[in-house]
Amino acid sequence: MNSLEEIRRAIRSGEWTRPTAGLAPGILQANLVVLPKRYAYDFLLFCVRNPKPCPLIEVTDPGSPVPVKTAPKADLRTDVPRYRIYRNGELAREAFDITEEWTEDAVSFLIGCSFTFDALLLNAGIPVRHVEEGVNVPMYRTPIPCEPAGMFRGPLVVSMRPLSPANLIRATEITSRYPEIHGGPVHVGDPAAIGIRDLDQPDYGDPVPIREGEIPVFWACGVTPQAVAMESRPDWMITHAPGHMLITDTPLFWEQGGADSHAFSLTDKNGP
Amino acid sequence: MNSLEEIRRAIRSGEWTRPTAGLAPGILQANLVVLPKRYAYDFLLFCVRNPKPCPLIEVTDPGSPVPVKTAPKADLRTDVPRYRIYRNGELAREAFDITEEWTEDAVSFLIGCSFTFDALLLNAGIPVRHVEEGVNVPMYRTPIPCEPAGMFRGPLVVSMRPLSPANLIRATEITSRYPEIHGGPVHVGDPAAIGIRDLDQPDYGDPVPIREGEIPVFWACGVTPQAVAMESRPDWMITHAPGHMLITDTPLFWEQGGADSHAFSLTDKNGP
Repeated sequence: MNSLEEIRRAIRSGEWTRPTAGLAPGILQANLVVLPKRYAYDFLLFCVRNPKPCPLIEVTDPGSPVPVKTAPKADLRTDVPRYRIYRNGELAREAFDITEEWTEDAVSFLIGCSFTFDALLLNAGIPVRHVEEGVNVPMYRTPIPCEPAGMFRGPLVVSMRPLSPANLIRATEITSRYPEIHGGPVHVGDPAAIGIRDLDQPDYGDPVPIREGEIPVFWACGVTPQAVAMESRPDWMITHAPGHMLITDTPLFWEQGGADSHAFSLTDKNGP
Repeated sequence: MNSLEEIRRAIRSGEWTRPTAGLAPGILQANLVVLPKRYAYDFLLFCVRNPKPCPLIEVTDPGSPVPVKTAPKADLRTDVPRYRIYRNGELAREAFDITEEWTEDAVSFLIGCSFTFDALLLNAGIPVRHVEEGVNVPMYRTPIPCEPAGMFRGPLVVSMRPLSPANLIRATEITSRYPEIHGGPVHVGDPAAIGIRDLDQPDYGDPVPIREGEIPVFWACGVTPQAVAMESRPDWMITHAPGHMLITDTPLFWEQGGADSHAFSLTDKNGP
């Protein structure tokens, strides 16, 4: 199963229901949050006000299951391998297909995913500890509040990667160019300064060893928008199941440099 | 009249009603669009989908006249030197104070302004033709459609600066770091390629001479969101009058590098 078409077909048919890490390397993967239109303004504004944890890749028109910009061949009702359906902020059930749940006013938010993030570091020759160890990245719920927007509020969740000073500098340079997948770090060094008590006890994911001379480096984490959406208890919400991302139709390095990656391209899309 | 406090007071009292170009150098100035809440989702999504012409700096809560993030000491009802009030897409009147017009569901959008843009180029030693000539920058309405969102749709407006090849490269490098004030260029060279027939006949602003060896360079322009909002004919809308910007409380280079300028700063705002 190599081509994007084959992967898409396997996920759509329900044949592939496992996490998407490592699938379709070089293709942008995305977190999914689906909300009814009545919550969409507040959630959109929340993402705009908190771009580091919630970097928006695309927002669909109400009722449309097609992300026309980043995944025009995908159907959001079938093309995520595993969904979570929440009612009033509680997980109601998981599903492999949400066609039955879909509504005419469903608005889908695609948000940058850090799977693509680790690939950036590895490509630059920067070892990533949780990849070396074969575990999930350690994530911490900080006491730092995101900027609220309407009904949505909640704390910033961060991921942590231990790095040597030289790699810390290089990783900051590289990730700062990609605001669509969380951008540069939000903190470096003392975990207590951002309210983390014990690095060995992450709130999500797995702990990783920090070697002598290494500094913990913290990035805003894509778990934030789901955690915030859950805390805010909308009566209906669907997300991907953690790790089971939407694989878009968009190559990872679709616009070199990253800073303008949300810009529309005259030659590709709007040209004469 | 030098300090930000003095300028703010002069504008608020109605003493200063002229354009803000050159006022408070080093302070971010912003375009203003005020809409009732019922239009806010569509307009917010329009800005998110078209970040080059519509780089969002801040969106206020409904009814709040205070941009808490970028201009916490300002009042949007009094602190723009000259406003325009539109009804059904038509200019109804100008005003120096919109306190009487303000509503409980007014949502204000602050959008990056190119006054700050020219300062960036000049600071880097790049001559800017319309500044040299003492005229307004030439702006062109292209036939290139912005990505629509709900009721909002319309063409991309661009500004043009003629540059030598070396300055073109440097200006692209510099402006690309500042997506909040339109980012890098959208086109370089042949005006016909983006549907501009005659550079000597700009749709807004003034024509400027292009010297031998220079190449016209086009950037997305902050006139776009107002033009689009007008075309879409919301029944009520207030904007600043062209050139009469909101002067924020935010230093221009508030976050070095630009790419992360929308990021919240842990140390400044969310720190322990």
